[in-house]
Amino acid sequence: MYKQLLKAHLGKIKGQVLIEGVHLCHSWLEHHADPLLAIFNAAVLEHAKSGVCSGTAEHSEYKQAKEKTTESALAMQSSGDEVWQLFNLLDTDQCIVVPDKLFRNLTHVDSPQGVLFLVNTPSCKVPAMIHENAVFLDRLQDPGNAGTILRSAAAAGVRHVYLSKGCVSAWSSKVLRSAQGAHFSLNIYEQQDLSGLINRTSIPVMATALSDKAQSLYETRLPEQCVWLMGHEGQGVHPALLSKATHQVFIPQTDLVESLNVGVAAGIVLFEHRRQRLYCV
Amino acid sequence: MYKQLLKAHLGKIKGQVLIEGVHLCHSWLEHHADPLLAIFNAAVLEHAKSGVCSGTAEHSEYKQAKEKTTESALAMQSSGDEVWQLFNLLDTDQCIVVPDKLFRNLTHVDSPQGVLFLVNTPSCKVPAMIHENAVFLDRLQDPGNAGTILRSAAAAGVRHVYLSKGCVSAWSSKVLRSAQGAHFSLNIYEQQDLSGLINRTSIPVMATALSDKAQSLYETRLPEQCVWLMGHEGQGVHPALLSKATHQVFIPQTDLVESLNVGVAAGIVLFEHRRQRLYCV
Repeated sequence: MYKQLLKAHLGKIKGQVLIEGVHLCHSWLEHHADPLLAIFNAAVLEHAKSGVCSGTAEHSEYKQAKEKTTESALAMQSSGDEVWQLFNLLDTDQCIVVPDKLFRNLTHVDSPQGVLFLVNTPSCKVPAMIHENAVFLDRLQDPGNAGTILRSAAAAGVRHVYLSKGCVSAWSSKVLRSAQGAHFSLNIYEQQDLSGLINRTSIPVMATALSDKAQSLYETRLPEQCVWLMGHEGQGVHPALLSKATHQVFIPQTDLVESLNVGVAAGIVLFEHRRQRLYCV
Repeated sequence: MYKQLLKAHLGKIKGQVLIEGVHLCHSWLEHHADPLLAIFNAAVLEHAKSGVCSGTAEHSEYKQAKEKTTESALAMQSSGDEVWQLFNLLDTDQCIVVPDKLFRNLTHVDSPQGVLFLVNTPSCKVPAMIHENAVFLDRLQDPGNAGTILRSAAAAGVRHVYLSKGCVSAWSSKVLRSAQGAHFSLNIYEQQDLSGLINRTSIPVMATALSDKAQSLYETRLPEQCVWLMGHEGQGVHPALLSKATHQVFIPQTDLVESLNVGVAAGIVLFEHRRQRLYCV
């Protein structure tokens, strides 16, 4: 079992992923069924229990592992109570409790909170026709940018995000952390042929670009529904894809820097779109 | 000399910093005087010269170090020509050329381009009265967010950024990379007492907040000049500071996620401000 978890940690089990931390695990429970497995750090549970929850019934898993706590784990105190509450929300047979040292092998962060869920990666069927607000990401490389864009899309009410082949994996731990739970309220489609998808789009495709053909975002009456096409951090949207976009827009900026960060640019266009939808009807 | 560079690399020389890569070094030359010292990777120069620039006069520094190249450094080819051009822009006595292995000890990136500038950190005198558009950052932690906000401020035409005590250092290598040269066209003031500064502000202070007192960004007529006050990633603007702001605004979002990334939120408010300045006069 532990070996399988290590594999999942390394992203080597297709269709399964480890999500980490109280916030993401709670988001998972809100939006999906129970996890395949919940993994807890014995040291964190031990500390939280001794401080706050004495008298609460003990999971048997917890009893088995609690002897193996280490000093270092006690630094994780701040979120320990929340981890303990999460532990008590779940059935015993869903949980395993592992010693601090083994737990740390399963996390990607320096200061882990003490809880991981092993879950099936939600998979979404691509609709036959795209007619709802969506984001298309062309070869985006940086996990922080990808996560930020997922977060901004959810915040702006755009529920569908399509990632091209060559994009960073949407379910990698860094993207998950950066998106702060947005994954669980979005439909995320990976490894997509964006060019083929544009042919199946019944709404305008708006590409962000710094080309001569682009018009100012603020002088564009944005359609109620559209696809936002955003590109690679250095190269932007691939020219072949760009030529298939219905419109090209740019964000009017000074020439003090070459461009905006793509995650920021996405936030600006998605929220200008939201502003126009909410306030310019 | 090399020991001093190592110290600068570790951020241990007050008032000096190493900036890295062709783009940042060019930005420095555009906005400032020459660097204190330019450090080049011998392997990169060797490769660029043999491929492109045969016949060009050789710096003596380059001759001394070129024997020490290593195979691994040849992977840096893509930006080698630009590094070579930069090398030829500078006077010999400004440059040192070091073997690949030593160069790598001075960089923070996995694939260094082959050029570093040692420069004096520009210091700006805080004006007696603040009456121009500015950004105040309260205890911002993440270097990526800080860099992104500097980049967005420059792109939006906001020239002054004040960082509180407890903020990430604006001149750390990660912030420099993330800001993509914005540092060199901004006035950056670090270790500031923002509360004291608000007393010396003759323009409205707009804080982003999710409090009951906040009003919708899109229903707010933004003043021509104002200070944007943005806060800590998890905690937002400190309550004591927030109470001193003239206005509190929020970005109208769905409840699918708790909040926006602070770098994205800054981009959205700075560009909504720019939109109103440019298009709502």
